[in-house]
Amino acid sequence: MTGTSPSDFAKRLDKTADDTEALLGRLLADDILPDEIARPKRLMDAMRYSSLNGGKRLRPFLVVESAAVFGVPREAALLAGAALECIHCYSLIHDDLPAMDNSDLRRGRPTLHKKTDDATAILAGDGLLTLAFDIITRDEIHRDANVRLLLTRALARCAGIGGMVGGQMLDLAGEGRFGDREPVDVARLQQMKTGALLRYGCIAGAILGQATPAEYQALDDYGRALGEAFQIADDLLDVEGDAAALGKPSGQDAAMGKTTFVTQLGIEGARQRVRDLLARADSAVSIFGDRAAVLQAAARFVAERKN
Amino acid sequence: MTGTSPSDFAKRLDKTADDTEALLGRLLADDILPDEIARPKRLMDAMRYSSLNGGKRLRPFLVVESAAVFGVPREAALLAGAALECIHCYSLIHDDLPAMDNSDLRRGRPTLHKKTDDATAILAGDGLLTLAFDIITRDEIHRDANVRLLLTRALARCAGIGGMVGGQMLDLAGEGRFGDREPVDVARLQQMKTGALLRYGCIAGAILGQATPAEYQALDDYGRALGEAFQIADDLLDVEGDAAALGKPSGQDAAMGKTTFVTQLGIEGARQRVRDLLARADSAVSIFGDRAAVLQAAARFVAERKN
Repeated sequence: MTGTSPSDFAKRLDKTADDTEALLGRLLADDILPDEIARPKRLMDAMRYSSLNGGKRLRPFLVVESAAVFGVPREAALLAGAALECIHCYSLIHDDLPAMDNSDLRRGRPTLHKKTDDATAILAGDGLLTLAFDIITRDEIHRDANVRLLLTRALARCAGIGGMVGGQMLDLAGEGRFGDREPVDVARLQQMKTGALLRYGCIAGAILGQATPAEYQALDDYGRALGEAFQIADDLLDVEGDAAALGKPSGQDAAMGKTTFVTQLGIEGARQRVRDLLARADSAVSIFGDRAAVLQAAARFVAERKN
Repeated sequence: MTGTSPSDFAKRLDKTADDTEALLGRLLADDILPDEIARPKRLMDAMRYSSLNGGKRLRPFLVVESAAVFGVPREAALLAGAALECIHCYSLIHDDLPAMDNSDLRRGRPTLHKKTDDATAILAGDGLLTLAFDIITRDEIHRDANVRLLLTRALARCAGIGGMVGGQMLDLAGEGRFGDREPVDVARLQQMKTGALLRYGCIAGAILGQATPAEYQALDDYGRALGEAFQIADDLLDVEGDAAALGKPSGQDAAMGKTTFVTQLGIEGARQRVRDLLARADSAVSIFGDRAAVLQAAARFVAERKN
């Protein structure tokens, strides 16, 4: 493997974050859609507040870098990444609502419903979720309609009841929100709740690149390993992290008595599991040779991140 | 025009409602998706509660009958209709939430959040919205991927910020939910909030039938007229209707001081406007000759309904 230095990697990540921010800004501009009906400003402002606020843009980065393995034009991958980011941002808005996780802060700023009100937050989430499916079908993403359809259907599956939405429901049930605390399979829950969108980032690149079945499987395996490593790192940060770097209080999981990878495996066990997953992610994409270097660096970044 | 007798029409409407109910039951069965991840039962139960509860299934009926003009296979139209109905049902769940319209009853039964809780209702709505985009992309809807993409994108546009979600935001603003009561253009608001999905039912048939531009325009015009007639009839029912037949209290709009077609046009003016819209709907689809009879009967049914 050629290797990608940490500073090269950081530059690539920043560049994609900047490009994604600019693209989302255009997609959420008041007048961008070719539609005779103007969109209500309050709703657009709310959607912009929650999606134009920086962040690492890890999910679009995974789309861009998985697609780059196949030489897919960057603009196409960025557009698919923006659709995925709309789904991610909607899920944060709805998860933060008083009826759900009741969070006041997100990335060090008031959550959308604190900044506005619950009704606006519900509708802004619905709007971003729907906009994602508008974006992912656009002609500029790929000339082949079948490719765009595959991207669209995979997005619905990863975001839906067998993916992110289903995982969120399992998470609430595990917290005892609907009566007795239900037993939790942490790996399965997180594979759905946070893993499914990260995995989508990777398989979207494979779909865009019209990968062979073996190449698709490699990115699928990589995405699953990265997704689990991401969540374990998150659980470790909740125990070991620093509130300032996180932009939210640490120790929340323990305070709520949540079952996490750390409560199941212990700190050392969780760290070992991250190392195993990193090796699995590395190995999965090794079939791409040198072209896998950035993806391998991305897995290390995810596993070792501090916020 | 051949004409369709009221009893023939009622039978056709019932048949499509029954077929839609059965199809949604299969689409929302616990094991129907080819997915290794089972879906959480609580979420599926909530989605079934809110979508398998009868109703006239007017939107799927419009898809089926618009598609029938072009000889589209009924099964394909029903599937597109089921996707549209998922969007409609999600919107009712979210609109009923305490943070939105705070409704306890829907079709004479407790609303989903009263039956369960707000978190489950938010997630069930998100799940139905996402499932709609899974369904609308399916191969069985049309062999041509471009047709399925057009259906998908139009659904996102009609349901999104320039359509239903945007209309709901304008409606809340008009109620004074975000400070001063904002001035309301009732026709524009309702064209977005309720009209966009009804219109989708009609243009979906045109897309499925690979209509010529003139045929598409005819169904688009018909759908817009029918959508406005639907809403004026709704406003008239709120003033004149019977709570038992409506399944909810009447007089709610007046009690809230809402601007409606009736407050803008008066009762007689509103009735005249419905007659004008009926004539416009009839005329729009007259290019289809005898094949337009059921659509013309549907417009009359919408304008004259009692609940």
